[in-house]
Parts: sequence; structure tokens; C-alpha cells
Amino acid sequence: MIGVAVMGCGVVGSGVVEMLIENRELLTGTTGDELRVLYMLDLRDLDVPEGVVLTKNFEDILNDERVQIVVETMGGTRFAYPYTKQCLEAGRHVVTSNKELVADHGDELLSIAKAHGVSYLYEASTGGGIPIIRPIQQDLRANKLSEINGIVNGSTNYLLTEMREKGVSFPAALGEAKRLGYVEANPAADVEGWDARRKLAILANAAFGAKLGDNQIIPTTGISAVTEGDMNAAAAFGGAVKLIAHAHLNESENTWTGWVHPCFVPSAHPLYNVNDVFNAIMVHGNFVDNVMFFGRGAGSKPTASAVVGDIVEVAQSLDAPRKRLEYASPVAFDAAPSAPRRLLVRFTGDENAVKAALPGCIIKECGDEKAVMTAEAPADVLNSAVQALSSAVQLGAPLFVL
Amino acid sequence: MIGVAVMGCGVVGSGVVEMLIENRELLTGTTGDELRVLYMLDLRDLDVPEGVVLTKNFEDILNDERVQIVVETMGGTRFAYPYTKQCLEAGRHVVTSNKELVADHGDELLSIAKAHGVSYLYEASTGGGIPIIRPIQQDLRANKLSEINGIVNGSTNYLLTEMREKGVSFPAALGEAKRLGYVEANPAADVEGWDARRKLAILANAAFGAKLGDNQIIPTTGISAVTEGDMNAAAAFGGAVKLIAHAHLNESENTWTGWVHPCFVPSAHPLYNVNDVFNAIMVHGNFVDNVMFFGRGAGSKPTASAVVGDIVEVAQSLDAPRKRLEYASPVAFDAAPSAPRRLLVRFTGDENAVKAALPGCIIKECGDEKAVMTAEAPADVLNSAVQALSSAVQLGAPLFVL
Repeated sequence: MIGVAVMGCGVVGSGVVEMLIENRELLTGTTGDELRVLYMLDLRDLDVPEGVVLTKNFEDILNDERVQIVVETMGGTRFAYPYTKQCLEAGRHVVTSNKELVADHGDELLSIAKAHGVSYLYEASTGGGIPIIRPIQQDLRANKLSEINGIVNGSTNYLLTEMREKGVSFPAALGEAKRLGYVEANPAADVEGWDARRKLAILANAAFGAKLGDNQIIPTTGISAVTEGDMNAAAAFGGAVKLIAHAHLNESENTWTGWVHPCFVPSAHPLYNVNDVFNAIMVHGNFVDNVMFFGRGAGSKPTASAVVGDIVEVAQSLDAPRKRLEYASPVAFDAAPSAPRRLLVRFTGDENAVKAALPGCIIKECGDEKAVMTAEAPADVLNSAVQALSSAVQLGAPLFVL
Repeated sequence: MIGVAVMGCGVVGSGVVEMLIENRELLTGTTGDELRVLYMLDLRDLDVPEGVVLTKNFEDILNDERVQIVVETMGGTRFAYPYTKQCLEAGRHVVTSNKELVADHGDELLSIAKAHGVSYLYEASTGGGIPIIRPIQQDLRANKLSEINGIVNGSTNYLLTEMREKGVSFPAALGEAKRLGYVEANPAADVEGWDARRKLAILANAAFGAKLGDNQIIPTTGISAVTEGDMNAAAAFGGAVKLIAHAHLNESENTWTGWVHPCFVPSAHPLYNVNDVFNAIMVHGNFVDNVMFFGRGAGSKPTASAVVGDIVEVAQSLDAPRKRLEYASPVAFDAAPSAPRRLLVRFTGDENAVKAALPGCIIKECGDEKAVMTAEAPADVLNSAVQALSSAVQLGAPLFVL
């Protein structure tokens, strides 16, 4: 018997318990031993399955030597951080879906885990049920990984899909989504791109060895400024608007660059067809070329699938955690202000002024407005040109071109 | 130092050697030890990298105790089968891209590997560089997996894409692809679906525990009967024609059903946008729902990526091969002749006869012909109805509806 404790029994934690029970036979066949939930930690009075102890007291878990794997699905960092640390220090494997904790304290927690010969796994922190962290660290690890482009926030992808398909404004789509319970009451973390930014930091860490802990330095623009006009502009150029989390390794390989920004995604791009709450992450490696992973990026059951997948890995090798690539030197962040880029910008006004300011651009009509797609140029050059233009014509917020 | 020998230095084998050398530093960082290619086995006189011994003699590899991992990229079964067996029996880990050998003798080779405490890994046998076997066996293993739909043959997907985009016939597309070297001189294994069938058998084994060894029992129809008219019919119904490898577990869970067949794939389906030589595989699990894996299904470098990914796994745990799910009883194949299905069929002739024979169907014009999409009905009922209709109207070969 391998004892499991689940800390935090909300949407994900309860899904984990459900999966461990419903798929018990399969899991025993896979790991060679029974995974038994001994504790559920929660401050609420919940109904728990037979044989499981519901506790409000973390010490119960920490002091019970039968608990070999702790699932942290509490969210946030206030309790999750000290509890995770104590579990690892006590030689317990920890599996989590907590992207905030991994993005903020992952490096420290991983090194504590290593020092104590246990695993700290977080497949569920990014992409929900989609296998992405282990594929990056294992299946694709023989590649020099150089680029990531992902749709990693289901709520914003749902809102953009609604805006496109129903022709509604961002506030209208958001209001309806709130009413249906598809976004949180305070949707800022999703809508402003902070959730995507955390996941990007975790992906860049897995792929390039980017440092965890300071994801706030990643330039991030959410979708609240995206308009129906942007949808029309993207359609006129044969594509759609998606919130993309992007990272690439710079040639020296000692720095990486990343951003979260609304993008024009052309219809031939594999990310174009990723709609509604679905997530997808595309990774580029020097031998494998581009590979994409697609599925449900959130929800109780898909996220539980990723958590329990990690539990299976731990249970299969309790005494020998998987080796991780160690980087010789930290891969620092570089915002790379002069990296080449193309923009798609709505405008109303004098087309000739736009053509003069943005050499090599393409202009198309879209409804009452026009839209310009620039030629590729250094980002800072483009920004200055667009800035200067804003005195001559009325400009929308720019979309990056993927 | 971990000694590696590569048997068969064609497209894949040479890519493996290239990757082991080009990404050496990364691989050492990941596995904690140097992976060194000691031998390349080939009957041709090839240029080999410095320090590597080119040999025509398999015994050189078998007798050198430094060789811990053998890469079998010979293809076929005549030599690959006995060599693999001898390597495993001698306690060597074997990693392969050989779908024919895995599909024909995988069960036996896996049990020999298990008996000798070594790994037999074959990520590269299906989906080229796309991680799919390990995700099924590891990341998604906590799920009851119940369905697979894949585009697993790049050549046929390329031909169908050319037919659709250029409006050419199958023979014309095939001729051009041969001229460009995109398909083999004898393309039967690709065009008739036998390659896809082998990969389907390997996927069904990984997902459901289907027996390996008798993949010929899987009903298989290739693309040689697909016409420009089928392309038009699919377009009229808002989709495209793809060669799909399908498998599902039947409810009793003691049988599985599978087929390879040209399908109508609607534009909203994630497989719709998989074009040219790309492959994609969608898997359904009881918690994760649908997950899709997309990338390059063939080619020297992508396939090498999968082979070397397996080498990394072996090198990380030389003494403790990953556990595999053991099935209590063999999951037998059932062609399930009365499984429900929809068909899309071109026809010319009396629309009323078609409507009478296929209740609930939808008929659309497509060029000079018409096309009918049936309602869902048992496959054998549909087949009889279509058979009977063929005396009244002229029918094309049916597409399954995905």
C-alpha cells in the first residue's frame, strides 16, 4: 500500500480522489501496489469516501509515516508553500497542480526535493490534462528546445472564441461568461494574462532552464483591449485572434525571451483551430521540429488526470526520482526589445500616412476600419513607427503576428 | 560512459548517430553520463564519425560488454528479429523505430525484455517524432483509455492534401510524389493502409493491451479508390478526406475494435487541420477526455528524436526499467460488424431511390455528382442498404464519417 494525502479538496483535489478510487484497479496494475487515500485536508466539512480521514490539521499528514505521496491542490502560496516545504523535508513526494507556487518558488522546492531524494512534480500546473511538462523533460529532452508557443489559458480562449463566433464585444462576452460561471468573479488573473504568464514561466523553465520566481518581468498584455474590430481585421487577413504565450531561447543560449500578448494566428497555423476552453502548446526542438500537444487545459477531471499521472510516476519509482537536466549557468531573461516582429493594427484615417510610416506593409479593409500588417522589423523600431503614426491616424491596440 | 550500438544506418539510424553527437552535451547533462556510439552495423561501406567502429558483423556488438543500449533501425524482421532477441537475452536494452517488428513480434520481445530486466522501447515506431507511446503508457496511464483516432501515415496524408489543394486525381498525385521522392518506389504499404494498420496495432496495444502479432485481422482500406469526387463531396459537407486509423475498447472491455479507412473529417474536428506529411493522434481517456499529439510522423531527424528520447529513458534508469501495465486477460479483437456508423457516399442517379434506401440521410450536390451522408446505423445494416442501392444508382466507394 502506498499512502496518499490530498491537501485542498476543491475542484482539482476532489477530482484526484475520485480518479484514485474510480480507476483503482487500473492504477494498481500500473504501479504494482495499491494507492490508498489516507487523508483529505480541508477546512470545510466535506463528505469523504469511506476509509479516508478528513482533517483540518496538516500535522496529521506530516506525522503519519504511511503517507508517501502528498497531493497539493490548495492553490495560492500562503499555506501551500510552507506545507510543501515541510513535506519534502520530511521525505515525502509532492505532486501539485499549483501554478502559482511552482512559478514563484519552484526552483527552491525542486532543490529541497533533490536534497531529500524525493520528487516534486507539477504536470497539472500547466495545460491541465495535456501532457506537456513530462514530454518536454523526457520525451523531447534529447532535443535542444528553442521555442514555445502556447494557448495556455482556457477562459481567455473561450472569450475570444465567443467574440469571434457571435460578433460580440469583450465586455459582453465577459458578462455572459461570468453569468454562466465560465470565468471567475474576479477574472483579472485570466483576462490580464497573469495566469498565462505563470504557465509560460513554468514551460520556459522546463524547456530552457529559465529561472522560476520572477515571472512578473515577462511583458504581458491581456485581452481586455481586444475589440470586434480586431476580430474583423484578423479575419480579413485570414486568421484569428488568440492570446499566445511565447518563449524562445536566444542564440547565445544564455538568455531567453518571452511575452504574453494577443496575436494574429494565420489559418494554416496548428494553433488556429484551438477554440473554446481548449489549450494547446507547440514546442520546437532541433531534431523533432514542431510538436503540438492539445486538450483540455482546465477542469476537475482533466487536471486530476495530470495529477494522478504524476502520482503514477512517483509510485513506480519511489526510491529513485527521475533525473532532471541540470543547467551549467542560469538562463536569464532578456526582453529583447529589438527582436524582429510583425504587427497587425486596426486604423481609421489616411492610408498614405500609414504606408509612408510602415514600409512594406499590407493594408486591408475590414468593416468600417482598415487594418495594416507590417513587414518584419525590430520591435522597438515598429513601436516607434506606430507611436509616431498615432498623431496622424486613429490606431487600435496592436496584435503580434505569430 | 554508456555504450551504444546502432544496427542499420539508413535514414533513421544515421539521424540517431547525428543526434547523439550533435546534442552530446545536453544528453550528458540529462542522463548524468556520456552516451557514446561504439558501433554502427551496416553492410555498406559508410563514412562513420571518429571513434565509431563500422562493422558488418553482429557478433562484434553482442560480444562487447561495453554496449549497454542497442538501437535497432534496420527495418523488416528477417535480421532485426533474431538480433533483437539475442540482444535482449544478453541483457542489453533495445530501442527501435521498427514498426513491423513491434507489430509482429512485440509481445514476445517485451516478455523477453522483462525476463532479463531490460527495456524494449519503441516510441519511434509510431508517429515519428511525436511523443505518443510513452504519453499513453505513462502520462495518461491513470485513465481508462477507450478510443484512438489517428493520422499515422504521412505519405497518404500528403497525397490526400495534394488531391484536395490541387484538384488532381489519385494517380496524378501519386506519380508526382514518386517523382519528388516523397513516396517509395513501391508505395503499396502506405497507399493500401498496411503501414497505418501496423501503427494502429501498436497504439491499441499501448492503450488497451491489444495483442500484438496479428494485425492483418484489422479491416483496412487504403486511399487508392479515393477520387476527386470524394474531395468535392467532403467539401460540400464542410470537411476533408483523411486516412484514419481508429480503435476503441468495447464496453465489456474484453474486446477492442479497429479499422483503417478513408474518412470524412468535419472542419471542427482537431484532425481536420492536419495536412501534408504531418501526423496526429487523438486519444480519449475517462478523466482527461480527448488529447491530441501533433507533429512530424517520419523523416530522419524527427524519428531520431523519438529514438534518442527512448535512449535517454533507458540511460536514466539502466537497472530499473519502467513498469508496464499488465493485463489480467488478453484483449481480443472484434470487428464489431454491427457497430454504429455514418457513411458519406458519392452517387449519380435517382435521388429518391437513395432517400428511400437510407432513411434520415442528407443529400448534397457536389460538381457533376451528388453525395449522401447517412444517419447513424449499424455498419452491417448500412452496408446492406448501400449494396442494394448499387443496382439503382451509381455509387462511389464509401467514406466513414468521423
